Amino acid sequence: MLRVPVGEPVDLSAYDAAATPGGPKNKAAGRAATARMGKPLAALQERLWAAGAAGDRRRILLVLQGMDTSGKGGTVKHVIGLFNPSGCRIQAFKAPTPQELGHSFLWRIRRALPRPGEIGIFDRSHYEDVLIARVRDLVPRGEIESRYEQINDFERSLTEDGVTVVKCFLHISYDRQRRRLLKRLDNPDKHWKFDPADIDERALWPAYQEAYEIALRRCGTPYAPWYLVPADRKWYRNWAVSRLLLEHLRALDPQYPPADFDVTKCRERLLKGP
Amino acid sequence: MLRVPVGEPVDLSAYDAAATPGGPKNKAAGRAATARMGKPLAALQERLWAAGAAGDRRRILLVLQGMDTSGKGGTVKHVIGLFNPSGCRIQAFKAPTPQELGHSFLWRIRRALPRPGEIGIFDRSHYEDVLIARVRDLVPRGEIESRYEQINDFERSLTEDGVTVVKCFLHISYDRQRRRLLKRLDNPDKHWKFDPADIDERALWPAYQEAYEIALRRCGTPYAPWYLVPADRKWYRNWAVSRLLLEHLRALDPQYPPADFDVTKCRERLLKGP
Repeated sequence: MLRVPVGEPVDLSAYDAAATPGGPKNKAAGRAATARMGKPLAALQERLWAAGAAGDRRRILLVLQGMDTSGKGGTVKHVIGLFNPSGCRIQAFKAPTPQELGHSFLWRIRRALPRPGEIGIFDRSHYEDVLIARVRDLVPRGEIESRYEQINDFERSLTEDGVTVVKCFLHISYDRQRRRLLKRLDNPDKHWKFDPADIDERALWPAYQEAYEIALRRCGTPYAPWYLVPADRKWYRNWAVSRLLLEHLRALDPQYPPADFDVTKCRERLLKGP
Repeated sequence: MLRVPVGEPVDLSAYDAAATPGGPKNKAAGRAATARMGKPLAALQERLWAAGAAGDRRRILLVLQGMDTSGKGGTVKHVIGLFNPSGCRIQAFKAPTPQELGHSFLWRIRRALPRPGEIGIFDRSHYEDVLIARVRDLVPRGEIESRYEQINDFERSLTEDGVTVVKCFLHISYDRQRRRLLKRLDNPDKHWKFDPADIDERALWPAYQEAYEIALRRCGTPYAPWYLVPADRKWYRNWAVSRLLLEHLRALDPQYPPADFDVTKCRERLLKGP
């Protein structure tokens, strides 16, 4: 994966969605490397959770964005599945409900944030409000323009409150999406995942790529940078997101809190009971 | 595990917390058997989720109750960890907040229920309101008495709305609890899990056992029976809860919904695009 340089124009066509930068050399090695991260990831998560129980406000928010079939759901299943589920707060954002539309676009996002000690996962996010909203002209352009700054302010306030924001753009190619959609059609057990409207969205591919390029440029900040994850290869995508989470958790280096009680006395009380 | 007979008095002292009824013969076999359930559990969960996306209102609610150290959290980690985390809605209930106390005891429970297609997990639940509330005299006895019926009405309404309620009492022995609490004290990395107040609760062991016996008798119903899971052996506890979930999911037999669109036409549209 690549940390998108802050403040520079982004040209998605310059990035090969099938690349495996920094990754293991093939699928077997990639899967094994991801599995090996399971133990350290879960161990760090437990420390983060324990620290949170003692007042540490730090937490992780993983934001997953990408075109249909880019593997947001698969990442949750395979990467977040490595963690203890009780410390994960997962939210998939669909088209806003009438109630949600009655509030600022960040309202439903704020309600789904991870609590201290948790790992939050957004499958889609507030970025939809500058992606589909822009491509489909769902709100006036002036409102879209103001949202980039609102998002940056929001994410800065999150980081100031102890949230490490890890934003991943799962980058797939136009042709890989076709293959994945066809594969869904070929398997009746996958038809429930298919919506003919996905083909209409696909017809707007260039407009979506442009909307992503703008979002990555305008909302890539030093405190909440974007990561571009080539996602044509599922094993690489899983490895890359696991690796990113591992690096961020290691940097946080959460510690088990010390006892705030008399251990010896408690031991005695337990031993002398009936 | 044992399905607690409906309508009969319950004597917890008659059940050996170290027993392994119906289970594999030892720890190694038990762990292997639980791991083997991972694949069918996840497959059934996906079908449940897919059916839910197509309007099927069915879902599972796993209620975990038991004394401190009985392994509610461990069950979530090891059993619920077998599922796709995005289809699980996990809620751990702590002492009620002032806001929660301003409502009926079922208010916070209703807000945490699984949505159609999901597997909901309660680590503690509305049963605390007839357990600690009874033992600690937190509310008048008349109110406690009325709650058993309120719980039964509530659970019947859940089942009528498609919720399969699976209630597990994780049964540990007084002595096993002592050993687990001492183990936490022996390991500084576990001190965060320890609270000296746990020793005060432990002193009320007989009152808690009695409160559980009453709850199991009065709220064990044909539509939402209690399961008694001997929990002195962690491997057996994990096996038993996995097995219960597998049986219930198999009984639901959720099906992938058929396509509600023209598959051939969609395939053609995808292939003819640029």
